Amino acid sequence: MVDQTSLELRSLVKPDGALELSLVRVPVPTPRDDEVVVRVEATPINPSDLGLLLAAADVSAVTTSGAGVRTVVTAPIAPAALRALAGRVGKSMPVGNEGAGVVTSAGASPEAQALLGKTVSILAGAMYAQFRKCKAADCLVLPAGTKAEDGASAFVNPLTALGMVETARLEGHKGLVHTAAASNLGQMLNRLCRADGIPLVNIVRSAEQVQILRDLGAEHIVNSVQPSFSGDLIAALEATGATLAFDAIGGGKLASQVLSGMEAVASASAKTYSGYGSSVYKQVYIYGSLDTGPTELTRGFGMSWGIGGWLLSNFLAKVGPEAVARLMGRVAAEIKTTFASHYTRTISLLEALDPDVTAAYSRRATGEKFLINPNLAVD
Amino acid sequence: MVDQTSLELRSLVKPDGALELSLVRVPVPTPRDDEVVVRVEATPINPSDLGLLLAAADVSAVTTSGAGVRTVVTAPIAPAALRALAGRVGKSMPVGNEGAGVVTSAGASPEAQALLGKTVSILAGAMYAQFRKCKAADCLVLPAGTKAEDGASAFVNPLTALGMVETARLEGHKGLVHTAAASNLGQMLNRLCRADGIPLVNIVRSAEQVQILRDLGAEHIVNSVQPSFSGDLIAALEATGATLAFDAIGGGKLASQVLSGMEAVASASAKTYSGYGSSVYKQVYIYGSLDTGPTELTRGFGMSWGIGGWLLSNFLAKVGPEAVARLMGRVAAEIKTTFASHYTRTISLLEALDPDVTAAYSRRATGEKFLINPNLAVD
Repeated sequence: MVDQTSLELRSLVKPDGALELSLVRVPVPTPRDDEVVVRVEATPINPSDLGLLLAAADVSAVTTSGAGVRTVVTAPIAPAALRALAGRVGKSMPVGNEGAGVVTSAGASPEAQALLGKTVSILAGAMYAQFRKCKAADCLVLPAGTKAEDGASAFVNPLTALGMVETARLEGHKGLVHTAAASNLGQMLNRLCRADGIPLVNIVRSAEQVQILRDLGAEHIVNSVQPSFSGDLIAALEATGATLAFDAIGGGKLASQVLSGMEAVASASAKTYSGYGSSVYKQVYIYGSLDTGPTELTRGFGMSWGIGGWLLSNFLAKVGPEAVARLMGRVAAEIKTTFASHYTRTISLLEALDPDVTAAYSRRATGEKFLINPNLAVD
Repeated sequence: MVDQTSLELRSLVKPDGALELSLVRVPVPTPRDDEVVVRVEATPINPSDLGLLLAAADVSAVTTSGAGVRTVVTAPIAPAALRALAGRVGKSMPVGNEGAGVVTSAGASPEAQALLGKTVSILAGAMYAQFRKCKAADCLVLPAGTKAEDGASAFVNPLTALGMVETARLEGHKGLVHTAAASNLGQMLNRLCRADGIPLVNIVRSAEQVQILRDLGAEHIVNSVQPSFSGDLIAALEATGATLAFDAIGGGKLASQVLSGMEAVASASAKTYSGYGSSVYKQVYIYGSLDTGPTELTRGFGMSWGIGGWLLSNFLAKVGPEAVARLMGRVAAEIKTTFASHYTRTISLLEALDPDVTAAYSRRATGEKFLINPNLAVD
């Protein structure tokens, strides 16, 4: 067992400002009593992985050296972006938040032994690797007959979608707004909101995305590139009563437009004039940064509003382990329905370093989602 | 009693987009059992009154007609500003949030009768008037020997300063940041934070304002027009541990700079690298709009942050009547010390319509504060 090795993908920001991607062969440690080793067979490239993986480097300017498992990809990082990366310069970082695979060895404890041969999902980091050691208690055992590919994305998107709905409940909102709503996550959120009877306004940026959601049966879809956007948005906000938005875009004026639309609905039904706007509380959480430019708030939406960052790990810490266990139980039960993910391509660790493939997954295009199978042959 | 009349200042936005300020003579109603009538002798022009009073009109372009108590002042309102005022078009609005005066008549109840002849402060709206009827229970009786002028500003600024400190406590922050910190409110907040031992970072915009606060004994003062601002701010944030800011400016980049400074302090002491920034929660509340332009957030401060509107009336509703009563008791006891306000000029209702005076109070200049005595002679 101590002789086993695992190839894993590493991302390194060098002091000279270059990003270096490579594969590193590391020993697979023997699991302790309460641990198992998982042979990773499916691990997605989520938008939330790309920040760590690509470090905001210019992937259109990659150079490649070496070959096979010794391939090294280098790409330049703009000096402005480099400042925010100071904490990781010189540190070879493993990548990949989540994934699924088969338990191939287990520690002595009954809990660990019980997992031998089982297909499990884990959220452990360093998943872009052939093997990953983790606590037995952190494994989500998938229902019998579930393939690793089906369980690859059991944490980030399902818990984010559930987290959005739970946040609405905890903070007293009766409807939700989601931007970049045709994403894998957005489609999942539509299925979840339909199942739970929560009104959802989907904001998208193209006619194709409108169609994706229409085909899913989404009721409220507004296209922000249409001239009628502002009026369409207000009509959808009025129909749903949504006062909470989750925004994947971050930059630009969209968050502000959403707050203005919510205030237009709230003040239309206000009985008396107030220069401070309505007393209806309106909230936007920014959870992504598809537009890395500044967020611009016009503040034409009264005084009863908030905007803030939303991060899954902070949400999970806030609700506590019992709530998380309840949510995970639901994910496992509905992994092939509500929480199903779809992938446009499955690649090997080596293909993840291919400049054309890197360019493709770095685009974060709606409807395109990559899955890595680290146990596909690399030579 | 029914023959008594009261002159009151009115602000009217006309359908053609003009602001009209005038004085209107209204009957003073007989108080009901639980009511009193106050002869208003001192009522401040707060920044929070100017929005209702001036309706964003261009006060440099006023025209005046009539004379004496029949003076009518007219000023144009830009079409863009007019949209937000739709709810008040055609409604003659009384103005003036707070003030103080002497109870001249009282209803039959013992509580009302007990107030006869007393000097009281009230937060009732429509205070730019010779007489104001209100509930006896809403009167804050000032300690014997307190003049109306001393009690004119007993609510808005004192409760805002107390509300900021209470918000910090309720939301778990150990230090505060305040912008436009040399204002009347800012000076009050300095006295309050010193008395309560709460570290306070004062952000100002000129050397004169630095001196005002230095003379008050303020410890942490940073000048945002200095080239060293960013570093000075981080040093002050580090010294105080402040993670909550109250921003009177609203527009521009200052709120974002404050969050970035807080994050720089938090991430400097973080033990591990995270692409999502520190887990230290950072909050900015915007409570004013000295810069009416858009708020620009660079979001270079991780994911654990929030920004939102802060309105005194919402805060008071949230903490509830018992907490408000406790805070008001403290205001009354410290009205001549911690919560003292200073005025540069006392004017009559007629002078409030004088174009030069209007231009002066609409400037909201630091250190300049106007008091109206509605019972000064107007003819």
